[in-house]
Amino acid sequence: MSVIEKKTVQKVEGGGILSPAGFKAGGIHIGLRYEKKDFGVIYSERPAQSAAVYTQSHFQAAPLKVTQESIASAGLLQAIVCNSAIANACTGEQGLKDAYKTRELIAKRFRLPEEYVAVASTGVIGECLPMEKIEQGCSHIAVHKDYNSAKSFQQAILTTDLVEKAACVEVTVDGKTITIGGAAKGSGMIHPNMGTMLGFITTDANISAPVLQSALKKAVNTTFNQITVDGETSTNDMVIVMANGTADHKPLNENHPDWENFQEGLTLLCEDLAKQIARDGEGATKLVEVSVKGAHSDGDAKVIAKKIVGSNLVKTAIYGADPNWGRIVGAMGHSPAVLQPDTCDIYIGGELVFSEGTPQVFNEQSVSDYMKNEEHVEISVFLKDGAGEGKAWGCDLTYDYVKINASYRT
Amino acid sequence: MSVIEKKTVQKVEGGGILSPAGFKAGGIHIGLRYEKKDFGVIYSERPAQSAAVYTQSHFQAAPLKVTQESIASAGLLQAIVCNSAIANACTGEQGLKDAYKTRELIAKRFRLPEEYVAVASTGVIGECLPMEKIEQGCSHIAVHKDYNSAKSFQQAILTTDLVEKAACVEVTVDGKTITIGGAAKGSGMIHPNMGTMLGFITTDANISAPVLQSALKKAVNTTFNQITVDGETSTNDMVIVMANGTADHKPLNENHPDWENFQEGLTLLCEDLAKQIARDGEGATKLVEVSVKGAHSDGDAKVIAKKIVGSNLVKTAIYGADPNWGRIVGAMGHSPAVLQPDTCDIYIGGELVFSEGTPQVFNEQSVSDYMKNEEHVEISVFLKDGAGEGKAWGCDLTYDYVKINASYRT
Repeated sequence: MSVIEKKTVQKVEGGGILSPAGFKAGGIHIGLRYEKKDFGVIYSERPAQSAAVYTQSHFQAAPLKVTQESIASAGLLQAIVCNSAIANACTGEQGLKDAYKTRELIAKRFRLPEEYVAVASTGVIGECLPMEKIEQGCSHIAVHKDYNSAKSFQQAILTTDLVEKAACVEVTVDGKTITIGGAAKGSGMIHPNMGTMLGFITTDANISAPVLQSALKKAVNTTFNQITVDGETSTNDMVIVMANGTADHKPLNENHPDWENFQEGLTLLCEDLAKQIARDGEGATKLVEVSVKGAHSDGDAKVIAKKIVGSNLVKTAIYGADPNWGRIVGAMGHSPAVLQPDTCDIYIGGELVFSEGTPQVFNEQSVSDYMKNEEHVEISVFLKDGAGEGKAWGCDLTYDYVKINASYRT
Repeated sequence: MSVIEKKTVQKVEGGGILSPAGFKAGGIHIGLRYEKKDFGVIYSERPAQSAAVYTQSHFQAAPLKVTQESIASAGLLQAIVCNSAIANACTGEQGLKDAYKTRELIAKRFRLPEEYVAVASTGVIGECLPMEKIEQGCSHIAVHKDYNSAKSFQQAILTTDLVEKAACVEVTVDGKTITIGGAAKGSGMIHPNMGTMLGFITTDANISAPVLQSALKKAVNTTFNQITVDGETSTNDMVIVMANGTADHKPLNENHPDWENFQEGLTLLCEDLAKQIARDGEGATKLVEVSVKGAHSDGDAKVIAKKIVGSNLVKTAIYGADPNWGRIVGAMGHSPAVLQPDTCDIYIGGELVFSEGTPQVFNEQSVSDYMKNEEHVEISVFLKDGAGEGKAWGCDLTYDYVKINASYRT
């Protein structure tokens, strides 16, 4: 008997924010960028239970404050508006006024209460939004259900990202399929700002805002929060999710028998987007994945993984295809996590390069070839301190990183 | 009446580890490096009260363990031996045996108790010392008082540093002049290791080991611990001080009326060496100094200063002579320190670029020229959260950093 069983959690190639039923989107050019689309909206046909996580930067940009206020009102959203090119950060009172105005105009455009609208921005900091352009954008933007509308939104949120970022996951709940879709933008420089990470997630799941908040936070902790391009946190980082409840299943919460499926699906979607962001880091030629197992705790494993993937020395060694385990040891060595140096094994790809505090004899050429030829380089660390596990993702550090960030004005 | 008053704490140009009375040094080539000197000793004519601080890395190298044991014995040292090229780190039992053997041989050579000898190493990790060469070095090394012997030691401890690093400070205690001298090595890469920072300090001050330990720790906290080249901590980092007590003054401690002079002098010496290390960072073209005032506490100020100077985005902006205050804000924004964004002023050189949460109009060209032309770029941040002050030093991030660290094997 051969039955192909459907997995309870699985990725869907080619899907995105419009894969779940009941959502529309659009993206247009309003003149903030030279030619490219720069203004987009995701729209939910009905009020959606919503949740978001925000940058930990002390300098939180104006749109994040407005979005927080919207979600705090009733946990419901029906539209998210996002512009690129100008981040509306470090803009004081005027910036806050402009973010409120944008919210008000989108609410009018779609006949929604203002509190049903979230606002996101990315781009230059320290510059105010040209509000006449934003006003035009708010009155002209249209939303549709088709594939191209999702693409238009995906394009409108980019800054100097090289590629669009979208993902989709299907999850079985109560024997039925629910869908989670997402779009993201990553790290690219626009003078005079650091890159911003934005994630937009839609789902037809039936779930309340507080439960969704806790699921999102958990998912982000092991995914978006575990990527690093250059160790910087933007003023505008935000991941936001709308759940419109059109899927026909019992409300999801931790007691629901399929709760783990949903949490896993949401995490998988976030991981997919996060990896796309890391791979598209400035000047990057490779995605680097570091996996730590056997740590004292999951938290320790995450800290160690992120230390390794964030190390300039590890990043340049990967760019140079140099199987330089000493730099991995160095990066782990100064992590604040609990760590027993004498019981530590390190693999690059499948090759054991360091074991129990002692260097191993290995084929340097073949490991170097692996680092050179693979677009996705894996470093695995096994400790013997416990059952803690964690991953982190980043990219190599290249001449182009320095070029993009040092000389784009000259 | 015109009397030129001598300052109670002042730098002495051209001085170093042999400036205080009672010390000798030497450095020779024993074949660990191709041609350059690679093995050195500092010798004190009498047992010196000693103290040291060590790397916080979990992977502490063997020589550091042996040195800790020596100092723990009676707080006295009479010789410090240091080799470059091989760090004797991650070398397990054999490494520890070799470090003990080195100590034993130097003790024999100078007829000292073994516990009067400290051991330091820097270079490749994961390789064992070629002990026949070390043994030869231990039996051949000679120490003298002349300027060239200090230089020989300074050279012997370098790896890929471009320049020798030495400093000297004079301090008035009980109306007399005491001298503090130092040598250091900084951050340079040797496959497959991260750079190592070593500091060696000598003084004729009359001070007990425990008091010296607390003074050294305090001095290192605001100096060596406030430099960053690439955010890495080596397995071998160490700063060590010998005080031989030949200066004729009452024993120094916190109740001595000139205690602050001594603390200030020791800190000034450490700062001088630390800045030389930062300036000689891999591929660096500039020393960057970040000063933070008005922070909630000194600790907060130090954390914020180090975040800014350690930011890849700030470092590339400085290399590109781009007065990109947004990156400074970004780096500060994700520091764990207490910080009020709305009361923050930022200067690049003498130019106010950001004030109280708002961008300032300034002459971009003149600030860019300043960043381009100065070898020493200063960024100043004024908060209004308290009286906390702190500084940090680093360097710019250049193509050469990537080159040195990615492609030195190809």
